[in-house]
Amino acid sequence: MDAAKLLERVKFDDRGLIAAVVQDHETGEVLMVAWMNLDALKKTLEEERAWYWSRSRQKLWLKGESSGHIQTVKEVRLDCDGDAVVLKVSQEGGACHTGYRSCFYRKATEIGWVEEGQRVFDPESVYKHS
Amino acid sequence: MDAAKLLERVKFDDRGLIAAVVQDHETGEVLMVAWMNLDALKKTLEEERAWYWSRSRQKLWLKGESSGHIQTVKEVRLDCDGDAVVLKVSQEGGACHTGYRSCFYRKATEIGWVEEGQRVFDPESVYKHS
Repeated sequence: MDAAKLLERVKFDDRGLIAAVVQDHETGEVLMVAWMNLDALKKTLEEERAWYWSRSRQKLWLKGESSGHIQTVKEVRLDCDGDAVVLKVSQEGGACHTGYRSCFYRKATEIGWVEEGQRVFDPESVYKHS
Repeated sequence: MDAAKLLERVKFDDRGLIAAVVQDHETGEVLMVAWMNLDALKKTLEEERAWYWSRSRQKLWLKGESSGHIQTVKEVRLDCDGDAVVLKVSQEGGACHTGYRSCFYRKATEIGWVEEGQRVFDPESVYKHS
């Protein structure tokens, strides 16, 4: 997709970032929230694979580059303020480094946060070489 | 819901905020992204109505306080890092101040961002007194 025209409308914050909400394109499950700078969004639009900006490592990362759990981007939507996007993706494996399909695997209950989610891989075997 | 135990696991950033992704509890549509500080999350958990922190106005706001478009919170989920939540809500009216049901009413296409969403109210009549 031609990114130049799309990028004109996006408002990066004072850190140069926007929030990206990642949603399974079939089930609507929210898989994760991550951050994008201009380069990450440009590469995501052009390649139709999700790239993010790591705030802790201060570098671009291709989702799945070490785990193989690539996100193929089916649709990108921009919010009214231009400072957040929704990516509808086809998620290979799981989105979360813990092995859950979604990073949002904890649910608020009267007794505290309860784990409730689909575990799709063993993080020790997936990340052992990284 | 008893907020004290839940709040222990939440990691607010250096601005004292977490990201909140708001999703229609029935359709899975992502309606908006907003920010919460500790007070906003506490009130949301206790009252089961969505409260946020406005970065521009530097104040707590109850979603729907001027428009009537209240969000009744059906479920709260926390991500692996503890710095983002998903709220599954029943949305009265529309989430977006533009009159769209969702703030994410623009879709990336080859010709640019194209508006594609359900318009549910007229912002001029809803916000005329605010």
